[in-house]
Amino acid sequence: MPISMYAITVPVFTRYLNNLDAVLATAEKFVEERKIKPEVLGQSRLAPDMLPLTFQVQSTTDRVKFALCRLTGREAPSWQDTEVTLADLRARVKKGLDFVSSFSEADLAGAENRMVTLKVRGEDTQVPAVEHITLNAVPQIFFHLTTAYALLRHNGVPIGKRDFVGA
Amino acid sequence: MPISMYAITVPVFTRYLNNLDAVLATAEKFVEERKIKPEVLGQSRLAPDMLPLTFQVQSTTDRVKFALCRLTGREAPSWQDTEVTLADLRARVKKGLDFVSSFSEADLAGAENRMVTLKVRGEDTQVPAVEHITLNAVPQIFFHLTTAYALLRHNGVPIGKRDFVGA
Repeated sequence: MPISMYAITVPVFTRYLNNLDAVLATAEKFVEERKIKPEVLGQSRLAPDMLPLTFQVQSTTDRVKFALCRLTGREAPSWQDTEVTLADLRARVKKGLDFVSSFSEADLAGAENRMVTLKVRGEDTQVPAVEHITLNAVPQIFFHLTTAYALLRHNGVPIGKRDFVGA
Repeated sequence: MPISMYAITVPVFTRYLNNLDAVLATAEKFVEERKIKPEVLGQSRLAPDMLPLTFQVQSTTDRVKFALCRLTGREAPSWQDTEVTLADLRARVKKGLDFVSSFSEADLAGAENRMVTLKVRGEDTQVPAVEHITLNAVPQIFFHLTTAYALLRHNGVPIGKRDFVGA
């Protein structure tokens, strides 16, 4: 199996966004059964100065979107951060999944030779694409995914690591 | 910059284990200043049925070790899970870093063509190395790294996402 920019992005993002959707679906059921107001979990945090669940899901999907756009030169669509309920957050994940599925192996062919432009302390900085994806984009995506999982877990949603890792 | 099995493992593990060490160092200082017993944070959990910080650090380093051994056919050393204090956990991370630094680009050359053997429900199962690393090993490493970070953050240790992502 060859190693490629496609292999380290599209199948990974697809699998883990699907897993995030499944975890959010379990959270929806939990909230319904316990008659918890639909906006409560979305606003939950692990520390008062940490961003809430809504942000973690928005950031996961945004970072997936930007990673693929930077690798291909495609313009990133703008997604409004208006999600409140778990259903809204699942729709956001679905938007992310649809976007990921619009990238083919051909779209990402040769992306390992690109430089990507990032803002670092307000300045445009050029970084090799491989370095950006492996050392920054993928870790940050898993950071926000895991934080979303941890927030739900901490609030009693019946999920385990198997739900994070998926099939 | 070429994409390789080395590029998606060794530099990533090195950077994020170093970041974990820095976060644990901040936790050590926090514990000393507040005269918290040295074993308390190591036993902290985000949910009563979730494994504690010691496990998260042990699992991070174990998964790094197994990923590199599976890719190269090297035998994995056995590390006793005896850590109690934050100093112990930093020593465990150091052990992980030393092990990672023993792998060269040449050691991992061609690893994308290997099959790795995993136990799946007690059965030996062959999985392509690229699939194992991208869809399972790296996500699980970031799962445990982020959980360690989240546990410390939840307990008031003054860290931010910048400390997770590092330089």
